Amino acid sequence: MTGAPPSPQLFFETANAFQRTEALKTAIELELFTAIAEGYVGGALRFLLLPSAVEGYKHLTEAVRKGGTARDEHSLTPEHPMWVEFARGMAPLMAMPAELLAKLLRAEEGAKWKVLSLAAGHGLYEVTLARHNRNAEVWAVDWANVLEVAKENAAAAAVAGRYHTIPGSAFDVEYGDGYDIALVVNFLHHFDQLTCEALLRRVQASLKPGGRAVIVEFVPNDDRVTPPLAASFSLIMLAGTPAGEAYTFKELQRMLGNSGFRSSELHPLPPTFFNVVIGTK
Amino acid sequence: MTGAPPSPQLFFETANAFQRTEALKTAIELELFTAIAEGYVGGALRFLLLPSAVEGYKHLTEAVRKGGTARDEHSLTPEHPMWVEFARGMAPLMAMPAELLAKLLRAEEGAKWKVLSLAAGHGLYEVTLARHNRNAEVWAVDWANVLEVAKENAAAAAVAGRYHTIPGSAFDVEYGDGYDIALVVNFLHHFDQLTCEALLRRVQASLKPGGRAVIVEFVPNDDRVTPPLAASFSLIMLAGTPAGEAYTFKELQRMLGNSGFRSSELHPLPPTFFNVVIGTK
Repeated sequence: MTGAPPSPQLFFETANAFQRTEALKTAIELELFTAIAEGYVGGALRFLLLPSAVEGYKHLTEAVRKGGTARDEHSLTPEHPMWVEFARGMAPLMAMPAELLAKLLRAEEGAKWKVLSLAAGHGLYEVTLARHNRNAEVWAVDWANVLEVAKENAAAAAVAGRYHTIPGSAFDVEYGDGYDIALVVNFLHHFDQLTCEALLRRVQASLKPGGRAVIVEFVPNDDRVTPPLAASFSLIMLAGTPAGEAYTFKELQRMLGNSGFRSSELHPLPPTFFNVVIGTK
Repeated sequence: MTGAPPSPQLFFETANAFQRTEALKTAIELELFTAIAEGYVGGALRFLLLPSAVEGYKHLTEAVRKGGTARDEHSLTPEHPMWVEFARGMAPLMAMPAELLAKLLRAEEGAKWKVLSLAAGHGLYEVTLARHNRNAEVWAVDWANVLEVAKENAAAAAVAGRYHTIPGSAFDVEYGDGYDIALVVNFLHHFDQLTCEALLRRVQASLKPGGRAVIVEFVPNDDRVTPPLAASFSLIMLAGTPAGEAYTFKELQRMLGNSGFRSSELHPLPPTFFNVVIGTK
């Protein structure tokens, strides 16, 4: 836009942006994408546009004033049914990043792995690791209602025999120990930094020496406004959680350091918009 | 995106587009744009996001099935209060295109003009013509409640003495005749083509020989999907009117021809997204 004469076009586009959401809903309702709608974007759209998610945005001004969601009932409420919708709706969209992560971690080399997965949701990340690595044994933590979905996915991938569940809050339950890998996928962004560090200390304690915390996240650049999707994810967390946000690599690195990890690395996961941050004990 | 690997990014951006609308509302509510909000974008946003406008989108799937708005109460309802909001809210954003139109028509040359303005709304287009041309005398047609706003704007521009009003529906009232210019600004897109032609025939009859119908519109290209703003305007009309849409130049040309105009020309109005189509009697 530099040098272009002023125009209210961006204003109109932004004011009317809600129309794009509705147009997409309509396209799916009219089965324009029949082949992909039900199993792919249909469920994802159901999750993204749950009343609980949209409702947070109706009180966005209050959330900005307060520095966190203005709603009493939010995504951190125990056993919130939105996470079942998440597990069912978002799984098909996570197949690609899960495959890319298995490749990044070289799952197919078959090293003997004990894998912990926190807030496992659909379970697709650890299920994919177990599918590529027959020597991986997996423990998944999430609310009991959500783990039912993960177990279905484990069964569908024929890894149910190596898939164990630990129902409850990732902040309370006993993880066990001796893990090689602890997956923390799209979980830290729900919490403030001190809470993240409290969780990461529990993770660190559960790992064997040399074990790795594998964090998959929306990671904005240090400017905090690029790339747009990672940056705007912070707004989603502001609308829907008491104190969550998307953290920069520097912030994640500091949290890992404060939690007893000796090193950390950043790996983009193209073509997805996720980044992987690996902290080594 | 050609050649880029597949990514659900566009899907996420579109599904979450409603968040941009809410973010803009919040920015205005928090007075981030204090200097411009109230007089400029604040009122425009109030109009664009009126419950009646947003409501149409809540029934978009039904509207697509039906080929027009699924709501009984829509923008064509006589004396609809949304047009008062329009007249108050959108006027500041129309100042620039009104000035550009006055320049295009060479108002400052001072030719003796009798000007008709249909569905005048805020009245800014004919008020600006009258302000630049002391020899212009203006007649504005709109609902009586809306004309009150136009009269305020005429008074503010010190042209009230040359500003006359004809309250009522542009399809019913007597326009008078002998007009040099008939403004039809952002009006045709509310109607189907036959209805537009019926209106344009009334306009044609009111003009003196050589008189001009001056149509300001969102005009998509023949492909009907570019430029995005003009193309998506058709969706707004689908959601909010029984049979309206944004017409291409070819369509407007044909309507003018069918209504007795002997020639028509297209003039873009950069940097705005409006086009001017002039039909000459």
